[in-house]
Amino acid sequence: MTDIRNAPVGVFDSGVGGLTVAREIMRNLPSEKIVYFGDTARVPYGSKSKETITRYSRQIIRFLMEQDVKAIVIACNTASAFALETVRHEFPLPIIGVIRAGAEVAAAGTRNKRVGVIGTEGTIGSGIHEELLHSLDPDIQVFGKACPLFCPLVEEGWTHDPLTREVASRYLKELQDKDIDTLILGCTHYPLLRSTIREIMGESVRLVNPAYETALELKRLLEKEDLCSRETREEEFPYRFYVSDLAEKFKQFANSILPYDVEMTQKIDIERYYSQPKEGGTDG
Amino acid sequence: MTDIRNAPVGVFDSGVGGLTVAREIMRNLPSEKIVYFGDTARVPYGSKSKETITRYSRQIIRFLMEQDVKAIVIACNTASAFALETVRHEFPLPIIGVIRAGAEVAAAGTRNKRVGVIGTEGTIGSGIHEELLHSLDPDIQVFGKACPLFCPLVEEGWTHDPLTREVASRYLKELQDKDIDTLILGCTHYPLLRSTIREIMGESVRLVNPAYETALELKRLLEKEDLCSRETREEEFPYRFYVSDLAEKFKQFANSILPYDVEMTQKIDIERYYSQPKEGGTDG
Repeated sequence: MTDIRNAPVGVFDSGVGGLTVAREIMRNLPSEKIVYFGDTARVPYGSKSKETITRYSRQIIRFLMEQDVKAIVIACNTASAFALETVRHEFPLPIIGVIRAGAEVAAAGTRNKRVGVIGTEGTIGSGIHEELLHSLDPDIQVFGKACPLFCPLVEEGWTHDPLTREVASRYLKELQDKDIDTLILGCTHYPLLRSTIREIMGESVRLVNPAYETALELKRLLEKEDLCSRETREEEFPYRFYVSDLAEKFKQFANSILPYDVEMTQKIDIERYYSQPKEGGTDG
Repeated sequence: MTDIRNAPVGVFDSGVGGLTVAREIMRNLPSEKIVYFGDTARVPYGSKSKETITRYSRQIIRFLMEQDVKAIVIACNTASAFALETVRHEFPLPIIGVIRAGAEVAAAGTRNKRVGVIGTEGTIGSGIHEELLHSLDPDIQVFGKACPLFCPLVEEGWTHDPLTREVASRYLKELQDKDIDTLILGCTHYPLLRSTIREIMGESVRLVNPAYETALELKRLLEKEDLCSRETREEEFPYRFYVSDLAEKFKQFANSILPYDVEMTQKIDIERYYSQPKEGGTDG
C-alpha cells in the first residue's frame, strides 16, 4: 500500500511564472516531489475574468488529482485571487494560493502601515491583497498598481535592460510618491525583475517575494496535516512538468531559471477536463 | 425564404486586433453585415502552436456557422498561417485569411524584390509569407522579424509613445539594414502602430496593410460567388460582436477604433464547441 505522504505536490500556473514558486519549493522542501502544470495554451491569465479563470483552475485541479497529488499550490496570483476561495471547498485535498503568505509577511513587517502591491490587471483589480491585509490589520493602507507589460518583457528575456527599467520606472512612479515601506511582488514573474524594482524603489522599501513565503506556508501545511514526505526525493522520480502547449519552449525557459535540469516536459489536452456549466453559473 | 446573399460575413480573431480588418470591411463593403468573434479568453495566439490554434479555429468556425454566416474571414495572421489551409477544406463555406492578399500586393509592388514581414512569433516562425511570396515570384527575398511586444504595447494604449518607438526601433533595426522596399504589417494590431513604423522605416519603404487588402479580397470573393448583399445594411441589424471573455473591456477598445458605435457585445462559452481529438491528431 502506498503512503500518501510520499505522493507529489501539485503546482500550477498560467505558464512559466509559477516556476519561481516551484524553485522555492525545491530549495526549501527538498524531499518533496512536484508535478507542475503550466497552462501555456491559454496564458496569460492576468487580463481575463474571474469566471474564466475559475473554470480553467477547476480543469487543472482535476488533471492534477489524476496524478495523485497530496496537496495543490496555485502558483499564480491571478488564479489565487479569483479561484482559490471557490475551489478549495470543492475538492477533497488541501489547496493553497500564493497571496496569503506574502500578505501575512507584509502585514507583520510594515512599520508605517503603508504597503504597495504590483501585479496583473486581474490581481490588482480583484482588490484581494487589500482585503487580506485589512483583515490582518485594519490600519494598513494599501496601494495597488497593475503592470501589464512586465510579463511579456520577462518572457522576451529583457529582464536586465534599460527599456524594462524605463517601463518599470513609469509603472512604479506613483508608488514612489506614496511613502510605502513594503512592496509585495504580486505576480510570479516579478521576482525575475527584482534587481530592477529594487533599484527604482530604493533600499528602504522591503520587497516581499510571495514565492518564498508560499514555500514556507506549504511546509507548515504539510507538517500540520502529517503529509510530509517520508522518503528523500528519489532519483527515479524527476520533477514532472506538464503544459497545455509548446512543451519544448517551456522546457528551455524552465532550464534557464530552475536549479535542476528539466528532463521531461509533456503536453496534455487540458480542455479534456472541461465540463458543462451547471445551472447557477458554476461548471463544477 | 431568406436569401443567403443577405446573410452576414463572419470575422474572427484572437481578440481585438481583427477589428482593424472589420473596420476595413465596414468602410469598403458598407452593405455587408458582420458577425465578429474575438477569442479574448485565450488571447494571444501568436505564442501558441499550430495544433492548438487549429483546434481553436475549428471551434470558432462552428460557432460562426450557428450564426448563419455566408463566408468567413480569419482576421488573425497567426490563425491564417496555422489553420486556414486545414479548415478551408473541412467546412462548406468560403473561408479566407489575412495573409494572401497582403502577399500579392507586396509581390506586385516590390521593385528590388526585397520584402520585409513583421508579425508574432507564430506567424514569422511559420514561414508562410516567404512560402506565398516565393510561389508568386521565386526571385523575391523575404526578411521576417517577430515583434512580440507590439501587441501588449498596443493593448496598453501606448501607441504613440517614446517607449514604443524605442521597442520598434530595436525590433526594426535588422530590417533597416536589409534594403527592403516593402514591409508587410503581418499582425492585425500593427496598423495601429503605422505612424511609428513609418517614421523608423522612412518614406521609401512601402507599408502593406493586409487588413485593407483583405477587405478587397473579400469583395472579389463575394462577387465571384454571387454572395454580395442585396440589401443595404439595415439599422436593425447592428454589427454583432461576440467574445469569449470580458465583453465590456472589448467594447471599449472597439469603440476607440471603429467608425461606428458598438452597441452590443456578448460573451459566449467557446469551449462548448470543443470536440474530442480524433485518431490521427485532428479534432474535426
